[in-house]
Amino acid sequence: MTQPSRLAIVPFVSVDSMMKLVLAVGVERFLTELVAYVEEDFLRWEAFDKTPRVASHSHDGVIELMPTSDGTLYGFKYVNGHPKNMREGRQTVTAFGVLADVGSGYPMLLTEMTMLTALRTAATSAVAAKYLAPKGARTMAIIGNGAQSEFQAVAFKAIVGIDTVRLYDIDRSASEKCARNLAGLGLETVICASGQEAVEGADIITTVTADKQYATILTDNMVGSGVHINAVGGDCPGKTELHRDILLRSDIFVEYPPQTRIEGEIQQLAPDHPVTELWQVMTGKAEGRTATKQITLFDSVGFATEDFSALRYVRDKLASTGFYEELDLLADPDEPRDLFGMLLRAAKS
Amino acid sequence: MTQPSRLAIVPFVSVDSMMKLVLAVGVERFLTELVAYVEEDFLRWEAFDKTPRVASHSHDGVIELMPTSDGTLYGFKYVNGHPKNMREGRQTVTAFGVLADVGSGYPMLLTEMTMLTALRTAATSAVAAKYLAPKGARTMAIIGNGAQSEFQAVAFKAIVGIDTVRLYDIDRSASEKCARNLAGLGLETVICASGQEAVEGADIITTVTADKQYATILTDNMVGSGVHINAVGGDCPGKTELHRDILLRSDIFVEYPPQTRIEGEIQQLAPDHPVTELWQVMTGKAEGRTATKQITLFDSVGFATEDFSALRYVRDKLASTGFYEELDLLADPDEPRDLFGMLLRAAKS
Repeated sequence: MTQPSRLAIVPFVSVDSMMKLVLAVGVERFLTELVAYVEEDFLRWEAFDKTPRVASHSHDGVIELMPTSDGTLYGFKYVNGHPKNMREGRQTVTAFGVLADVGSGYPMLLTEMTMLTALRTAATSAVAAKYLAPKGARTMAIIGNGAQSEFQAVAFKAIVGIDTVRLYDIDRSASEKCARNLAGLGLETVICASGQEAVEGADIITTVTADKQYATILTDNMVGSGVHINAVGGDCPGKTELHRDILLRSDIFVEYPPQTRIEGEIQQLAPDHPVTELWQVMTGKAEGRTATKQITLFDSVGFATEDFSALRYVRDKLASTGFYEELDLLADPDEPRDLFGMLLRAAKS
Repeated sequence: MTQPSRLAIVPFVSVDSMMKLVLAVGVERFLTELVAYVEEDFLRWEAFDKTPRVASHSHDGVIELMPTSDGTLYGFKYVNGHPKNMREGRQTVTAFGVLADVGSGYPMLLTEMTMLTALRTAATSAVAAKYLAPKGARTMAIIGNGAQSEFQAVAFKAIVGIDTVRLYDIDRSASEKCARNLAGLGLETVICASGQEAVEGADIITTVTADKQYATILTDNMVGSGVHINAVGGDCPGKTELHRDILLRSDIFVEYPPQTRIEGEIQQLAPDHPVTELWQVMTGKAEGRTATKQITLFDSVGFATEDFSALRYVRDKLASTGFYEELDLLADPDEPRDLFGMLLRAAKS
């Protein structure tokens, strides 16, 4: 066979390459730089083609496609959510994504996004907290100490200035894993015996549990005035983490209302319950935190533009770091109309 | 870095591997076997989750995601359509696809689909003709002799028994390319100077031109009674090939009406113009060809289930042929909740 031409090649970032990239840049710096991309895209929110994700639900989970475009670039992510996977030694969530050129329709990047989704989710939470959390916040409770927890801790240290994380998980070994992983990264970690204990003295409460069911991770009495709640785990229909009464006491901020109404904590509320879009706070079109005693709630479900930002960031890092392979993904016959001839010639070469 | 585990690996079929696979099986046998998969899935049409493709339109073209699932397997295709690409030495259409396990959400196959789409489109046309074309059809006109034309010719030889193809393209060199590629494959080829000349004596007329605009490749006077029209090229909003009068004289068969109404030849007709779904003919729920003089028209736009059939077929061929690479696409930490720890450990290995 002859070598595929340059037009046939798409850069591919494997899990191994992604880890090398993150480590080469440094986790905290990677998150900080990624936050800048996420922020930049939220600030030009109106430039994006937005649509709720395309979900295929089944008994055990969901497979989703999340596309978006800014008119110049197009990105999509494939992501599954299967809570039972953990019991079988698999990831609950795995993902990969593609960035493409709108002008030619050609893919420009194929990358693993299991690791990258964890990073972009943490980056997005940190962006929201930058605009909504109480000034001078230093302590964050993290309830649910699974795969996402450490990324949240590091992002909040880098962007918000958090210096202490109070950890709680129904499985204490998860909290111990989280504390172990965070050792040496400049954060004080406190393992707590209950959610109630974890939220004591916390300026920010992050909930990031994984069960696909209505659960009450936070009850109303656990939430004092003035805190910022970063609700990450409730992210599909039938899955919530907060007691409804907390929502009624909070000012609620969301990514994309048509999707959050279906998937977020606010699926517990009336479909016309007032919420504010995060991008409007960021651009000054709407108010964020206006009072010390106010409870702000970022009801995060993850949106396609955040993956788009992450894809853009990784693409921009490739040339200088070189952590990618070349994938012969696109047919490129010598003559575009001659796909069949390309096949015939392959037989002879 | 340590080696990724088996759970992290997804088989990848590059363009080069796909060509090796097609050549190892043989083009005609590949198409014949693929037809069996396409037919099998049309026969269990009601088992599929169906949705119109998710299209992102831009000035120069479109990028689409085409997902479907039968409840056990999930498949999607990424495909672009950019007519201007040809002038820049790129393919008008490029594609890749993924087959995944619904139970775990894990991808099982990533494959190029530029070549595979050409094969599945021809296979689908042949399946439709098997049920709709006049008995004993031997001669087919092919109007538009671009990338898809040879695949159509070989599929119709294998499945319908076509022995002569009459070729016409506004660019005669395209017809010459097509005839050259088909030499030695058991088909008589006749290059014609006009569409009118091409359809003379043809039992089947295949239209497969590429311009993204309303065009009239076939006028009413060119279509005699009794023929089967295989309209492949009109496949997006604003792109059609047949004069409306032909549609009014034909019995029209389609893949998935909600998509064909938007993208097919029938976008020229009233939204309630009667059409028959191909799967209903195949399962005996509706009549196909009932009279010798009847004009049957397969208004093909390409549907997600056909890509699903092609993905299934390629997946089933992998083990025996070995034409794939292993892609480290999925993060697989030793402990599913420990994605961050996997990253930290990668730094040490």
